[in-house]
Amino acid sequence: DKPLTVGGHTLSSRLIVGTGRYDTMEVMRDSLHQSGAHCVTVAVRREKLYDRTGQNILDFLDLERYILLPNTAGCYNATDAVRAARLGREILRTLENPGADWVKLEVLGDTKTLLPDPVETIRACEELAADGFQVLCYTSDDPVTARRLKAAGAASVMPAGSPIGSGQGLLNQNNLRIILEYLKDDDPDYPVIIDAGVGTASDVSQAFELGADGVLLNTAIAHARDPVRMSRAMQAATIAGREAYLAGRIPKRLYATASSPEEGVISSRPYGSQPL
Amino acid sequence: DKPLTVGGHTLSSRLIVGTGRYDTMEVMRDSLHQSGAHCVTVAVRREKLYDRTGQNILDFLDLERYILLPNTAGCYNATDAVRAARLGREILRTLENPGADWVKLEVLGDTKTLLPDPVETIRACEELAADGFQVLCYTSDDPVTARRLKAAGAASVMPAGSPIGSGQGLLNQNNLRIILEYLKDDDPDYPVIIDAGVGTASDVSQAFELGADGVLLNTAIAHARDPVRMSRAMQAATIAGREAYLAGRIPKRLYATASSPEEGVISSRPYGSQPL
Amino acid sequence: DKPLTVGGHTLSSRLIVGTGRYDTMEVMRDSLHQSGAHCVTVAVRREKLYDRTGQNILDFLDLERYILLPNTAGCYNATDAVRAARLGREILRTLENPGADWVKLEVLGDTKTLLPDPVETIRACEELAADGFQVLCYTSDDPVTARRLKAAGAASVMPAGSPIGSGQGLLNQNNLRIILEYLKDDDPDYPVIIDAGVGTASDVSQAFELGADGVLLNTAIAHARDPVRMSRAMQAATIAGREAYLAGRIPKRLYATASSPEEGVISSRPYGSQPL
Amino acid sequence: DKPLTVGGHTLSSRLIVGTGRYDTMEVMRDSLHQSGAHCVTVAVRREKLYDRTGQNILDFLDLERYILLPNTAGCYNATDAVRAARLGREILRTLENPGADWVKLEVLGDTKTLLPDPVETIRACEELAADGFQVLCYTSDDPVTARRLKAAGAASVMPAGSPIGSGQGLLNQNNLRIILEYLKDDDPDYPVIIDAGVGTASDVSQAFELGADGVLLNTAIAHARDPVRMSRAMQAATIAGREAYLAGRIPKRLYATASSPEEGVISSRPYGSQPL
Repeated sequence: DKPLTVGGHTLSSRLIVGTGRYDTMEVMRDSLHQSGAHCVTVAVRREKLYDRTGQNILDFLDLERYILLPNTAGCYNATDAVRAARLGREILRTLENPGADWVKLEVLGDTKTLLPDPVETIRACEELAADGFQVLCYTSDDPVTARRLKAAGAASVMPAGSPIGSGQGLLNQNNLRIILEYLKDDDPDYPVIIDAGVGTASDVSQAFELGADGVLLNTAIAHARDPVRMSRAMQAATIAGREAYLAGRIPKRLYATASSPEEGVISSRPYGSQPL
Repeated sequence: DKPLTVGGHTLSSRLIVGTGRYDTMEVMRDSLHQSGAHCVTVAVRREKLYDRTGQNILDFLDLERYILLPNTAGCYNATDAVRAARLGREILRTLENPGADWVKLEVLGDTKTLLPDPVETIRACEELAADGFQVLCYTSDDPVTARRLKAAGAASVMPAGSPIGSGQGLLNQNNLRIILEYLKDDDPDYPVIIDAGVGTASDVSQAFELGADGVLLNTAIAHARDPVRMSRAMQAATIAGREAYLAGRIPKRLYATASSPEEGVISSRPYGSQPL
Repeated sequence: DKPLTVGGHTLSSRLIVGTGRYDTMEVMRDSLHQSGAHCVTVAVRREKLYDRTGQNILDFLDLERYILLPNTAGCYNATDAVRAARLGREILRTLENPGADWVKLEVLGDTKTLLPDPVETIRACEELAADGFQVLCYTSDDPVTARRLKAAGAASVMPAGSPIGSGQGLLNQNNLRIILEYLKDDDPDYPVIIDAGVGTASDVSQAFELGADGVLLNTAIAHARDPVRMSRAMQAATIAGREAYLAGRIPKRLYATASSPEEGVISSRPYGSQPL
Repeated sequence: DKPLTVGGHTLSSRLIVGTGRYDTMEVMRDSLHQSGAHCVTVAVRREKLYDRTGQNILDFLDLERYILLPNTAGCYNATDAVRAARLGREILRTLENPGADWVKLEVLGDTKTLLPDPVETIRACEELAADGFQVLCYTSDDPVTARRLKAAGAASVMPAGSPIGSGQGLLNQNNLRIILEYLKDDDPDYPVIIDAGVGTASDVSQAFELGADGVLLNTAIAHARDPVRMSRAMQAATIAGREAYLAGRIPKRLYATASSPEEGVISSRPYGSQPL
């Protein structure tokens, strides 16, 4: 398997994890470590630097190890999202982190459901792509919107499995299949990353089994009872799902009639006698 | 996590794999190796020793490494199953393999669907338990039958996720939950192993996420396009599912309203200024 | 469509409803009326005649209209079930109700889950069939048990969609399909009735769409917020599901490519001009 | 139950059916009749009047009985859709059919999947609403797009259950629930109609059970093996689902523990003895 390449970056893991919603910075740091992620996403704000206990997230991120992916979380229109993306670029340049040239774009419809707004997302994607960003676009699982985002210049389209933080996994595999068909037709290496909705390890594996190139998640780890352990689970699920996809699964059947397996049988017949 | 103990055996992996249906003995050997399994199950027959090419399965199983679990595949009534179990014991004693004291009991209803026959299975289980076997009982996902098998002396009850070789995964999670509730009530270490129906890696993870202690599979690896690679996927899926179960997943919700995450945010405010 | 025939009885509706769990006798009577059922099932007890308010169910059942189907609810072994069946026969003979010759057999595993016990059910079925009863057997969705019950002489096998009162609908359509295949092979008129688990109208339709001959339900009506209205829904769902089954549904597809439909188009071209 | 009101029209049935894809005009006519529909939707074209056999659809539609709903099928951008809508209005005015003031807007993304294009749909909806149309908007199940369409002036939003003609039913009930929550919040009578994806009767019932106000379908009837019979099924399914919704279904549970039902029991104790 070749590694995942998105925008200009080649990542050593197909799992991308968020940095929000952890109880403590220490748990976050240890969870990121156990997840095996190479890329971690961070929210950009002008006004905040320290958390409620006076700690700075940058003290807990090993910048030698991780490529940061700034995201526009908390933006509800294209203008705010574009501004946040530019601010993130500025900050990451100061940090000399290679993630300065890309952004995870999310433009949400409202604070209640955190569902993406397709119209504002397309608008912001066009503007950021024109400004030279490698745009990774969070979107719903609507296939036509996904195709429009690719056409708008997105470096990766990242459809939701289900609403952010809902833990419902992949609700509409039919739509995800059509998105993969749309975006990879004549362009098989175009990266499609499932972002949002993961609840547990098998959801991650299912995303890869469908043919996704990557998975981005946050709450499923950060709000698990034991986030560090769940990170290990997610790393293993990434390998499990990707390898299963590449290995080619058996088809589903109502039932499978007995064949007569010649192998796998032991017998009391004396070893050395002639085969039939 | 403590290791899985079934009958008298403590296993270094929670994944048990079959040895049938492989294209070649070499692919079987390499697949078993990549699966990480400690226990492998073999069918017992009086009449067969060599496969169609004259090879003997025992030449391809590292008996220092694997505990063999003889199974009664191909039996359609209790009498035949009991006979096969005893024959397996005899053979494994000759091999000095520790698996001589246990058996995977399967008594099937017919050759078309390969579904288990509850009546004959209970009968055979009683007889084999009385004869000193550690009986691992393959059964349907019917909860009352599962409880009867434990009462009949089964060392482990092994409900099917779906029909053998069907690749449909866990069709009735409700029944599997009730089985776990029934069999582990006041006896939390009683081993419940999902046997049959696995199609791909996420099915394995789901079994563990439900609370199963182990998974037994065969066709999902043997008939994958690339069995050796699928074995690696299954090993990872075992870890992913078990760790996710122990880590405690987030609940499912229609959607998750935005919290205001203090962590996970980077900012352009000068480093070193006072926290709010 | 020809009507459903079970045992010796031909029923004008494919929906059979229970008489338990209603708030009042009046609501029960009105619900039965709206359901369109021809056959209603009643529990048999030696000790009870009146409810807590001193009312007798027989005063609320129009015995000219309904065929009663006595059931063995509350029995947890074959002996009790056989006794209840005989008592029911005796009572119905006194009432001169034609239902005296049949019985709905249910033998449950425990009071917590109300799941059927396959072993005791098979035993009771054999005994009652030998005693001349037309036995309608409630059972789990385990296909081999279903086939054994038919072999034991059951006039109808009635697999559960999901546990009694759970409202989960048809949890394992794969098993129900195999049961239909097993029991109707070379005997297409053998009646299979889905009994238990219905939560709402679409569950009833799904049962018929799978090919079931009838549906038996109780709690879904009796515990609905408006039982009388839910009865109407269930009557309509019975017709909807059965007719849809007979009409032959379209296949499922990932998506359907546009055809060019010649029909269904209106135009501004003057009426009367020549066709192309 | 009060009848469905959409735009200015009050309909005697909550089922709206299409007129395309039938084998013959006669089968279409009979199917419409059996469906009980009050409103039928027709595609608008400038160039076509007769079908391949020289028949005109208007000769087979009882214009005294049906309100026609012109639709913009076959349009792939806002400009074409707006033009088709205006043409439909013109034609229906000539026919003196009350449906001249409304339109079913569909703007599709491509001919392969027939999925709706959210961007062009919003654009066309704004323009048609400004032009005085009552716009019924076909859209995907994306909740934010649905909300934008209502804001753009749609008289009804009509989310797809699954792709047109796919027969997959309601693939993402979570999204449909959020759409209902979004659009009916503070406006409970706002009509939401599930349009596209229905395969069989239970799909229709499920749409109503979720709280939809109407269902629009075409292929599920037109391509059924027996379209006229399937129409009857769909009419019954509409009643079944709507009544079940209003009746208030029982909750789903893992299992339901036995209560002791006082009702529903018959006994051999002599009638007339005192209650306990």
